[in-house]
Amino acid sequence: MIIDQTIKQLIAHALAEDIGPGDVTTAAMIPAESTSTATMLAKQEMVLAGLEVAGEVFRQIDPAIECKLRAKDGDRVVTGTEIARLSGHTRALLRGERVALNLLQHMSGIATLTSKYLEQLKGQKARVLDTRKTLPGLRQLEKYAVRVGGGKNHRFGLFDGVLIKDNHIKASAGITNAVARARKNAHHLLGIEVETKTLDEVQEALDASADTIMFDNMPIEMMREAVKLVAGRALVEASGNVTLDTIRHIAETGVDFISVGNLTHSAPAADISMKIT
Amino acid sequence: MIIDQTIKQLIAHALAEDIGPGDVTTAAMIPAESTSTATMLAKQEMVLAGLEVAGEVFRQIDPAIECKLRAKDGDRVVTGTEIARLSGHTRALLRGERVALNLLQHMSGIATLTSKYLEQLKGQKARVLDTRKTLPGLRQLEKYAVRVGGGKNHRFGLFDGVLIKDNHIKASAGITNAVARARKNAHHLLGIEVETKTLDEVQEALDASADTIMFDNMPIEMMREAVKLVAGRALVEASGNVTLDTIRHIAETGVDFISVGNLTHSAPAADISMKIT
Amino acid sequence: MIIDQTIKQLIAHALAEDIGPGDVTTAAMIPAESTSTATMLAKQEMVLAGLEVAGEVFRQIDPAIECKLRAKDGDRVVTGTEIARLSGHTRALLRGERVALNLLQHMSGIATLTSKYLEQLKGQKARVLDTRKTLPGLRQLEKYAVRVGGGKNHRFGLFDGVLIKDNHIKASAGITNAVARARKNAHHLLGIEVETKTLDEVQEALDASADTIMFDNMPIEMMREAVKLVAGRALVEASGNVTLDTIRHIAETGVDFISVGNLTHSAPAADISMKIT
Amino acid sequence: MIIDQTIKQLIAHALAEDIGPGDVTTAAMIPAESTSTATMLAKQEMVLAGLEVAGEVFRQIDPAIECKLRAKDGDRVVTGTEIARLSGHTRALLRGERVALNLLQHMSGIATLTSKYLEQLKGQKARVLDTRKTLPGLRQLEKYAVRVGGGKNHRFGLFDGVLIKDNHIKASAGITNAVARARKNAHHLLGIEVETKTLDEVQEALDASADTIMFDNMPIEMMREAVKLVAGRALVEASGNVTLDTIRHIAETGVDFISVGNLTHSAPAADISMKIT
Amino acid sequence: MIIDQTIKQLIAHALAEDIGPGDVTTAAMIPAESTSTATMLAKQEMVLAGLEVAGEVFRQIDPAIECKLRAKDGDRVVTGTEIARLSGHTRALLRGERVALNLLQHMSGIATLTSKYLEQLKGQKARVLDTRKTLPGLRQLEKYAVRVGGGKNHRFGLFDGVLIKDNHIKASAGITNAVARARKNAHHLLGIEVETKTLDEVQEALDASADTIMFDNMPIEMMREAVKLVAGRALVEASGNVTLDTIRHIAETGVDFISVGNLTHSAPAADISMKIT
Amino acid sequence: MIIDQTIKQLIAHALAEDIGPGDVTTAAMIPAESTSTATMLAKQEMVLAGLEVAGEVFRQIDPAIECKLRAKDGDRVVTGTEIARLSGHTRALLRGERVALNLLQHMSGIATLTSKYLEQLKGQKARVLDTRKTLPGLRQLEKYAVRVGGGKNHRFGLFDGVLIKDNHIKASAGITNAVARARKNAHHLLGIEVETKTLDEVQEALDASADTIMFDNMPIEMMREAVKLVAGRALVEASGNVTLDTIRHIAETGVDFISVGNLTHSAPAADISMKIT
Repeated sequence: MIIDQTIKQLIAHALAEDIGPGDVTTAAMIPAESTSTATMLAKQEMVLAGLEVAGEVFRQIDPAIECKLRAKDGDRVVTGTEIARLSGHTRALLRGERVALNLLQHMSGIATLTSKYLEQLKGQKARVLDTRKTLPGLRQLEKYAVRVGGGKNHRFGLFDGVLIKDNHIKASAGITNAVARARKNAHHLLGIEVETKTLDEVQEALDASADTIMFDNMPIEMMREAVKLVAGRALVEASGNVTLDTIRHIAETGVDFISVGNLTHSAPAADISMKIT
Repeated sequence: MIIDQTIKQLIAHALAEDIGPGDVTTAAMIPAESTSTATMLAKQEMVLAGLEVAGEVFRQIDPAIECKLRAKDGDRVVTGTEIARLSGHTRALLRGERVALNLLQHMSGIATLTSKYLEQLKGQKARVLDTRKTLPGLRQLEKYAVRVGGGKNHRFGLFDGVLIKDNHIKASAGITNAVARARKNAHHLLGIEVETKTLDEVQEALDASADTIMFDNMPIEMMREAVKLVAGRALVEASGNVTLDTIRHIAETGVDFISVGNLTHSAPAADISMKIT
Repeated sequence: MIIDQTIKQLIAHALAEDIGPGDVTTAAMIPAESTSTATMLAKQEMVLAGLEVAGEVFRQIDPAIECKLRAKDGDRVVTGTEIARLSGHTRALLRGERVALNLLQHMSGIATLTSKYLEQLKGQKARVLDTRKTLPGLRQLEKYAVRVGGGKNHRFGLFDGVLIKDNHIKASAGITNAVARARKNAHHLLGIEVETKTLDEVQEALDASADTIMFDNMPIEMMREAVKLVAGRALVEASGNVTLDTIRHIAETGVDFISVGNLTHSAPAADISMKIT
Repeated sequence: MIIDQTIKQLIAHALAEDIGPGDVTTAAMIPAESTSTATMLAKQEMVLAGLEVAGEVFRQIDPAIECKLRAKDGDRVVTGTEIARLSGHTRALLRGERVALNLLQHMSGIATLTSKYLEQLKGQKARVLDTRKTLPGLRQLEKYAVRVGGGKNHRFGLFDGVLIKDNHIKASAGITNAVARARKNAHHLLGIEVETKTLDEVQEALDASADTIMFDNMPIEMMREAVKLVAGRALVEASGNVTLDTIRHIAETGVDFISVGNLTHSAPAADISMKIT
Repeated sequence: MIIDQTIKQLIAHALAEDIGPGDVTTAAMIPAESTSTATMLAKQEMVLAGLEVAGEVFRQIDPAIECKLRAKDGDRVVTGTEIARLSGHTRALLRGERVALNLLQHMSGIATLTSKYLEQLKGQKARVLDTRKTLPGLRQLEKYAVRVGGGKNHRFGLFDGVLIKDNHIKASAGITNAVARARKNAHHLLGIEVETKTLDEVQEALDASADTIMFDNMPIEMMREAVKLVAGRALVEASGNVTLDTIRHIAETGVDFISVGNLTHSAPAADISMKIT
Repeated sequence: MIIDQTIKQLIAHALAEDIGPGDVTTAAMIPAESTSTATMLAKQEMVLAGLEVAGEVFRQIDPAIECKLRAKDGDRVVTGTEIARLSGHTRALLRGERVALNLLQHMSGIATLTSKYLEQLKGQKARVLDTRKTLPGLRQLEKYAVRVGGGKNHRFGLFDGVLIKDNHIKASAGITNAVARARKNAHHLLGIEVETKTLDEVQEALDASADTIMFDNMPIEMMREAVKLVAGRALVEASGNVTLDTIRHIAETGVDFISVGNLTHSAPAADISMKIT
């Protein structure tokens, strides 16, 4: 994982948000010269994601903090596993604790949830995709966590792929027209995906030579038909209210991708604590 | 809700993250002069939060978009309720859709979850508090959503309240000592709260004149004892893995506050859609 | 052209760079209340680009300046054409003059040069592409100017298209391998282009199912062979030291695209002046 | 050359512009641990400028990249000269390549063009000046490149020198008046330069005790007269559509400075490549 | 003193403000390779504050500058005391001199003035408080300097304490009402202070259970009465035009705190020079 | 006074510093819809400076606030004068009060102190100059306030004038050498000033053709000699610990400028209050 300028600024911003003009508790009672060792522990089974990000939090507060990772992103760990050990100024450790945990718990929560979807797909070719349903400012980290959990990313934003949805189709006089305009105007390395709701629309998208066809909230049976209709001439993505209960049935229709908004907008935080030892 | 500089910048950042160098889909197929009307619909029962924030998203993209709110923050709405109607350039509407929904769904998700905790407390004096377990950059919005859902905020960050936790106690030689240092060094308008795990610690915090005493992960029975011990000489807060199933039992012990990390770190998004009409 | 946050910030930055703590000349001699009308004149034949951008420069300095555009982006104008007329505070007009002209001259220079390449291609199917050889911070404006001049954009950056160049091939053990990894790891809406220097490499890229094949600095004759080899199974792009003298010969080989670094890194400024009238 | 905060931010911005949420090509096919050595080669004769800037590009991406410069700014190198050798992570080298080259080619292009103007002035006292006709955000780097090429800088912006142009004169009732106001209001360390178009205006500027007199687009013969008229009582600068063909004739009139907008707004990029070895 | 992101940015901003596009004096006459040693000397008796901040100024300009502090914040030094010795590039030393001194002189001026107020209070329990009457952007440094001089901080801003002033009372229908609303709406760790002008108001604030009562511009005699009235049931703060001449009389009334706007808005700079040795 | 981007950002930063995540007092007790009128009153005699800046503070908080100025910058007002009247939301008025007053009091303090120095110079030709001894981030506002008070600005920073001080002279082998290098390397519109301590140094600076000669901490008698020695061949500036008591004597030596650090680093705040009416 590359800790680039965007991520560094996100962390700096999160620290400013939490610490503001100062941590009044540690300033009042912890001597500046006091040092400690702290340990981060998994308090549930989880797939870890964000360890480097958590390390960067402490590095920004005090580059002298030593951070030994005991695990790495992608590891599945059980309750009680020590995942990192930090040594340095007590004040710095306590100032960084909450921001580091907030990031680590959110990212591990996403990776863990993604891995649960993956488990449902054992033996199936379908891959789990994320969506643009992410939290403002966190997309890069959330999409990374999806990859760590075994998922595959969909396009990052509005700029790296053409995705023609119902609203676009309404506003541009039909699928055929919309795809033709995309082919003419978008640059030649951008694939074109079309959202469809009926078999007729699938056929129209196919005739327009869409690269990928999305089945939006289709019944399982219709999806199966649609996969047959497409017959490999385009990639196909199933989308819409996918849950752990329904994903396997969807996969069995033969789709290539299944996108799941829950992965990023509704993943519960994974429980991790930090304790001074 | 005041849309201050911090929130404006968060939205600007979210738009940059999503749109990057351009929305290739709308640019390719929607004429610049095309206008549309869109409607936002609740797709589940929820308590709304973030309508002004969503409005600001579209205002930043194009000040000419007209945004008529059909509901207001705090309203409980049922599936199918139209919550806002937007008119303006089609390109602008489509560019803002995802960011507006991401914010609105996250904030409404938090307000909705908070209201569910509140329902469990009918007839009890205990109030639901949030925590600092928020997502980086979103604390102001998330804490607002908790208030909209009927909860009360805890301190905002490390700077506006002294909260002495186990790690601080370990690092500063006991509760008595820690409270004394806080009283001496923190400014006179900051209250002091102490985390306790046993009745002995509650007694020590009480003797040290803590303003608030937190019961951290105590069994229900011990909390009941602790409330009696305190006998109104300090405010008391229950904390630790509180769920919808346990909160009423906790409240019945007589605590003043119950803090719930789930409100902000694990609230599932509320389902809202936007459709061109 | 959408004047988004990125462009507004670029302009704000350019104004700060030029004005710093103040325009000492106008402050010393022009009364604050003085108003004037100024006119912008083309001093050579050119294709205009950047009029909205120039307008935004003055809007940032003083929203009260009235800016009447006499032409629009994409217009071909002759020497002496009045392209805009500005009225408002004299100090504001003079403070904005240089930054507005610097942007307008650079963008019109690019549009004009692009249109010259286009003229060479009359009757050919090949389209002129830009490259990532742009000036830091100006890519969005430069790529817009290319479009205004009749060119088509290549990918915007490293993130919205897979382009496998010689350096990537060297570092990943051959074209076949590189394309396979891209297909597996990049998201499904990103097309894959491969740089080739020989007919063997073209064949390998074709076998690997590259979406686009770039002919890098190939002799005309080899390009003609290569186009035949590809036979429409992939798009083809010619690249490398393309000039006004060579572009038609290249087009006649039958390639789909010809990319030209000169468009953005070496376009001379178009000559435009602003005069108080 | 001092790589100050402004330049660091320009580079950070250029990298964000090019890399966005990630380099999809290298991420897909180059293993994170792969290392390489790359070499930068001059592909034409040029005067180098910007080597430290290019080095900073790679330093920002990965401080572990080793960058050995084989030449230094101001060196005139021939085609094929190796100018730098870089070792480090392959991904980092490829991520920085384009931004580093874009800066280096632009700056070397300016230095090279400046040196060509200098060559025309052998044996003349006149010095070549740049102008404020620079690209937004790049002024510091462009003016540095002019110095590297042997030119001298004019004022940096509107704030570090009084330059009274025709527009100012029109708006402040004549040269005499304008210079008097500047002398009274500008601080005492700012010199005053006046733009003139006729011998009468030169005389008026002289009488007003201007420190420098600019001859704007004067015919050669008039300039010769004007130099005699001034007779060393002020510095004189020739300005207006100066080219490589005309600069020597202008210099021979005896002016002190000749300013050339082309240096910064129309210098073609110098051709430099980077290859993994 | 923690040099956090906010302080680093303040310093970066101050350096950009002073250096702009370059230090023309040192660039013109000091060779880049020249090194020097400089010493900072106190030119009056003072309490030092800001040494780490001054060190950070030079570190930002050139991390290679060696900065040996000869004293530390809080030291009272006499005229002629060497307080720091700096070695490194001459250009860097001269570029940083003014910004470092401006900060050091301002902060030491505040610490010195605070210590003078403290001297007036020998033997009294009253403590000197600062206010929010600080200079924009400098609050963190100014409040730190107050602490270094022996003072105690009041709340940092509008967010970390409830302070109900006359304007609030007017706008919310009386003290009783205002305190009740604060108790209900502000979070439970925020203390509530009420400004009073008469004994009746003191009584009302007391009845409303204010945590702290401020006596605003009360005559000494009234303050004495008010202290008796309060009788330890709330903390009391005296405020309003406190000077070195009046502070002891105020303290003798028995108040807990005396707040002094002068500390931060009117402290004369302490005189410190830097000389190349 | 131009409220440019720099000043707008300074104000935004000051508001963020003071308000942080929210004004807990007004939020708790003032209804959102409450409106009020407030008046700003001078509480001492003063020269006003910063009224537009104070207006911008409220404009940033709430563009709907109506701000009627009753006086203008440069007006000398007596105690009790109403200087502005503000109407709008009570919350907004109270949120902006402190930041607006902090700026207005600081700037008016500087203008008032400057005017006092001016009064000492009645009938003398010498003009009062400010220095670079300003507070970080406030230079533009402070130098404006000096002008409002009747003073003249010295150079703004290190970039708009060559000022050769003792440290530069030591580091570059003498005055003659230093001036020669400045003349050669600095651009032609920058004047050159030399700091001198003895008559010999004055002579050397004169021989080197310095544009301005500074007399640094010279005794009055020596200054008188030095003025004679210079005899109008350069401008002369007196500098060093100038006070209200000494400035007239210095002026009587015949110097052109007297620079006073106190104006900006030690001006006491002017007393201004804001009251809800």
